[in-house]
Amino acid sequence: MIGAGNLATHLCRALINSGHEIIQIYSRSVKSASTLAKKINVPYTNDTKTIKSSDLAIIAVNDDSIKDIEKHICFPKVHTSGTKPLSCLKGKNIGVFYPLQTFNKNIDVNFKSIPVCVESSNSDLLQTLKILAVSISDKVVELNSEQRKNLHLAAVISCNFSNVLYRFSEEICQKEGIPFDMLQPLILETAQKIKHTTPLQSQTGPAKRGDFETIAKHLMLLENDHEKKEIYQLLTASIKKRQ
Amino acid sequence: MIGAGNLATHLCRALINSGHEIIQIYSRSVKSASTLAKKINVPYTNDTKTIKSSDLAIIAVNDDSIKDIEKHICFPKVHTSGTKPLSCLKGKNIGVFYPLQTFNKNIDVNFKSIPVCVESSNSDLLQTLKILAVSISDKVVELNSEQRKNLHLAAVISCNFSNVLYRFSEEICQKEGIPFDMLQPLILETAQKIKHTTPLQSQTGPAKRGDFETIAKHLMLLENDHEKKEIYQLLTASIKKRQ
Repeated sequence: MIGAGNLATHLCRALINSGHEIIQIYSRSVKSASTLAKKINVPYTNDTKTIKSSDLAIIAVNDDSIKDIEKHICFPKVHTSGTKPLSCLKGKNIGVFYPLQTFNKNIDVNFKSIPVCVESSNSDLLQTLKILAVSISDKVVELNSEQRKNLHLAAVISCNFSNVLYRFSEEICQKEGIPFDMLQPLILETAQKIKHTTPLQSQTGPAKRGDFETIAKHLMLLENDHEKKEIYQLLTASIKKRQ
Repeated sequence: MIGAGNLATHLCRALINSGHEIIQIYSRSVKSASTLAKKINVPYTNDTKTIKSSDLAIIAVNDDSIKDIEKHICFPKVHTSGTKPLSCLKGKNIGVFYPLQTFNKNIDVNFKSIPVCVESSNSDLLQTLKILAVSISDKVVELNSEQRKNLHLAAVISCNFSNVLYRFSEEICQKEGIPFDMLQPLILETAQKIKHTTPLQSQTGPAKRGDFETIAKHLMLLENDHEKKEIYQLLTASIKKRQ
């Protein structure tokens, strides 16, 4: 395991729980390497010269550090980035192993429910990656670099951007003395709905109904908040366009 | 119960399950009135002259129809709208009883988890509404008309607008041949996070990290999609502003 951050930590746990052996942790930072290594009881190093050869190196480091570390690895290797192409690794035994989820070191995740995207131009390695992915995840999909980059964009739009909309709502609630937790059931229901139906079908609200009176009232409330007003108008237009 | 739509149907069920008695359903449409009335085994009418007096009339009709129907009701009455002020009802025994959720006739909801906002300038009626609300919901909050209107705006922003972002993601996935259901776990995780932490604390992604390379890549992918590109730029700026 190359890396000792959030993703590396969760991947190590999931792999060990599925019966795989991690033979070594490498991290630039001795502290990070030793912290993770102690948790799972394996050797560690922070010296690229002492990286041990194995069946597979999983490079779970920041996107910008992939190039620096991958050149020291001459055995089969994968990176775990959503946005970097396969071609940022050099050699013939290269691939991608990208779990689509945000990870936090201290919050346990059920890896089984996390989709894993695999890619390799080497058919033997691709097969190995699929078997490895299936052993830890219920949802394994082969995507090329262009698709993976688009999936990452779609994740940013539907998750990071939804979250800032939650923040907008929280700001409105705080300003008016409304408990923000009143919105939690509705927010959760909105996210859960798309399990059973498409976002297009589950769209509700004044824009969908063509309720111009309510839209006008909302724009009045946002009169002095140019930022939220502009986004309100754009997203309202997007909903209307999709009827 | 004045009205026989989604909200009226769910409210009737929740009230009956909590031991309250519905004595009559009124709806402009005989068909809607009789459909709901048969489900819960109570009389119905579509004639405003035969509306029976009771402890409380719950007006669960479209916002625009409240004024037309409320004038025929001379006993205590509440409307159930998020955006209409208390003052759209006439008389002294008037109030608001607003459950914050989207309802679908055929999907069962757990009313207990749905927040109910109550309002009345009549302290006796306010007390009655609180008792009624507490009997069907675990979360009852007294809000004035201005607060309720702002809560409705916050709900539109965090729910209806998140949903159109999900649709954007689905469009990107469809265009690239990526299964959209890959995003479900991440979307659900994003919505669930705000139970334990604030949206500000749980923000992740390239805008939060200041990862300009990834942002530039995403904008390149959206080069021919002016609509999504503009919204991407605005929401990225909103996240950055909030660091």
